[in-house]
Amino acid sequence: MELVVHKYGGSSVADAQKIENVARRIGKVKESGQSIVAVASAMGDTTDELIDLAHTVAADPDPRELDLLLSTGELVSCTLLTMALRNLGYDAITLSGFQAGIRTDDMYGKARIFSIEPGRVQSELSEGKVVIVAGFQGITEDLDITTLGRGGSDTTAVALAAALNAERCDIYTDVDGIYTADPRIVPNARKLSEIDYEEMLELASYGAKMHPRSIELGAVNGVPIYVASSFSDSAGTLIHRVDKVNELENRVKVTGIAYQANLAKITVRSLPDRPGIAAALFEPLAARGISVDTIVQNTSLERITDISFTVSRSELTLAFAESQKLLSQLGGTEVISDDTLASVHVVGSGMQNTPGYASRMFRILAEGNINIDMITTSEIRISCIIKEEQVADAVRLLHEGFELGEEN
Amino acid sequence: MELVVHKYGGSSVADAQKIENVARRIGKVKESGQSIVAVASAMGDTTDELIDLAHTVAADPDPRELDLLLSTGELVSCTLLTMALRNLGYDAITLSGFQAGIRTDDMYGKARIFSIEPGRVQSELSEGKVVIVAGFQGITEDLDITTLGRGGSDTTAVALAAALNAERCDIYTDVDGIYTADPRIVPNARKLSEIDYEEMLELASYGAKMHPRSIELGAVNGVPIYVASSFSDSAGTLIHRVDKVNELENRVKVTGIAYQANLAKITVRSLPDRPGIAAALFEPLAARGISVDTIVQNTSLERITDISFTVSRSELTLAFAESQKLLSQLGGTEVISDDTLASVHVVGSGMQNTPGYASRMFRILAEGNINIDMITTSEIRISCIIKEEQVADAVRLLHEGFELGEEN
Repeated sequence: MELVVHKYGGSSVADAQKIENVARRIGKVKESGQSIVAVASAMGDTTDELIDLAHTVAADPDPRELDLLLSTGELVSCTLLTMALRNLGYDAITLSGFQAGIRTDDMYGKARIFSIEPGRVQSELSEGKVVIVAGFQGITEDLDITTLGRGGSDTTAVALAAALNAERCDIYTDVDGIYTADPRIVPNARKLSEIDYEEMLELASYGAKMHPRSIELGAVNGVPIYVASSFSDSAGTLIHRVDKVNELENRVKVTGIAYQANLAKITVRSLPDRPGIAAALFEPLAARGISVDTIVQNTSLERITDISFTVSRSELTLAFAESQKLLSQLGGTEVISDDTLASVHVVGSGMQNTPGYASRMFRILAEGNINIDMITTSEIRISCIIKEEQVADAVRLLHEGFELGEEN
Repeated sequence: MELVVHKYGGSSVADAQKIENVARRIGKVKESGQSIVAVASAMGDTTDELIDLAHTVAADPDPRELDLLLSTGELVSCTLLTMALRNLGYDAITLSGFQAGIRTDDMYGKARIFSIEPGRVQSELSEGKVVIVAGFQGITEDLDITTLGRGGSDTTAVALAAALNAERCDIYTDVDGIYTADPRIVPNARKLSEIDYEEMLELASYGAKMHPRSIELGAVNGVPIYVASSFSDSAGTLIHRVDKVNELENRVKVTGIAYQANLAKITVRSLPDRPGIAAALFEPLAARGISVDTIVQNTSLERITDISFTVSRSELTLAFAESQKLLSQLGGTEVISDDTLASVHVVGSGMQNTPGYASRMFRILAEGNINIDMITTSEIRISCIIKEEQVADAVRLLHEGFELGEEN
């Protein structure tokens, strides 16, 4: 029997009414003759509320305890979903992360799945049951409960789909697919019917609602991932291995425009340009858990250089203080920062073999009077750091300039 | 090292402030040089709220799913308690029911512990940690989560104390001990410094805040149970094997007066007095889960008899309908009910060898103009069913009549 895995996000199971709607959707799949495993996130903002609760009793909650606390959110939503399914007459059972055999390492708060033992899930499926699996959680070899961090339930769903050899993993969320740009900014943005894993990875890293981990996992295991809305029946977007050989010439080269707001830049001025200087700066930052994105080192002038890097704006204070502490040790003169920035990204897997995409991006931005602060590129992405106040204009202009919109 | 087990009820961990108070209490024990395992219930009314939530999605929630849902309540309170302890500088760890090795049968909603595998608890204790165990929950052989039903956390605590050979099990709650009568009704009721398991069982069955299961478990395993308030430092009541040989003659014969409100009586009239008639009535009632308390069968007159029994008032409608259904099959004439009743109980382990206690009880009630509807007795208890409106008077009169009050 064909097996599908569904995943429903927190907004899709936010209250009793929405949980019943999800139960009806799952019921339809069951009635179509397919087997189904559904992974659910915690209801609405439950996870944030539990984190707040932890902070009422401890300034710095213990990570192991916090994971055990947070794991309750998905048990609540999943048992309610199972009850709703049974209330509609479908046989169903909830399995917690450990009952579903989701084995992880012990990096609390950001555990990684190292194996799935699918025996229990398979035996419940073979009895004709709908299996509801608590997302976001797993268990260590010592039987301690872990959580998988941001995007955790997506990761649970794709990993289960891989372990169970499912036909497909459907991610139901509050957006109805992947667009060529954020439709709130670009009204004629086009919904993509399909996208390659690598392109989706770049889009997911910069703004799209999915976490890159689950896309990576899908790519590695060849699991097709279908992203659609849990609130409508309109067609979504299939993320899979797009066969490029057959359409190499005809393929639109740019897939979409992504952006990321709330960035800040830190520049460490007048550093001696010697080997190891970058490591001496970024290793301590990484040790403090600061996630650095774009890094640019200026061309050296008389063996003196500047290093600039971007961080999420919420981490600016910490990153700035840490950089200040390192300044004399590094031999620099000063640390300056700019907290008014954002990034805009042109993504497309056809770009790497075709010259001219970068220059076209820069010209479009220049014609819009948008100044570029920093530039980085990857094989399938060109990124520019710009002023945040211009980011909506930049997305619109690039979307139009690369002719990505719906035809009128 | 001496080991104690503490249990804190829902009202003792109802909010962050109360959880911190409990953490401080546990910290003091740790600093006194004892090892400690603490069992906590869910915060405040969490369990009832989760049951209500289940009923928003399903008219008749599946018992297995309900147990998995309810088990989250104790995980929340326990992880918060552990975080609070760590915040105060004590090393602590939460163990869920399954991590603490609490193995049960699969009677969801009222599972019974069949064994405790204390390995993990012992190894955490040997590392000097305070071990916080989620009460009320266990795990079956198939790794499904169960709950232990009413009084479940008390049962967890006493069972753990037995399995770990603890010195004592302390039950901290919102009352500060066991009294000779309900102090809200009898202002000069006396707090007992000690009470025998059997006497406590009778009191617990009729009004005292502890569930009989944990008392039974303590009696069978010889675990002394100390009941005291989590909100004060005043001395509580020790439930243990009271040595009666040495004090047989001097012992006050009556230990306390208990009562139970919200009773209803059903009478099935004019039944043929033949063998098996009681079984034919009560087996179907038991099969419907109706808990019958006092049963009285009148002396037969011309081979025709009446059978009366009491049920909790909330079960009257169901029990009445069931009795009506059975009426013609039983050969009775009618079913009548009375929903205005309560029970009052005189409890004391010295009574069985000493005549006159029952008649003294009846005389005290008669002098108070309180009519007795039904009477039952056990070895250490005499119970009368009376009108609920007279129950407070009855408790006061019996407490005074048996001279149980504080001396002024």
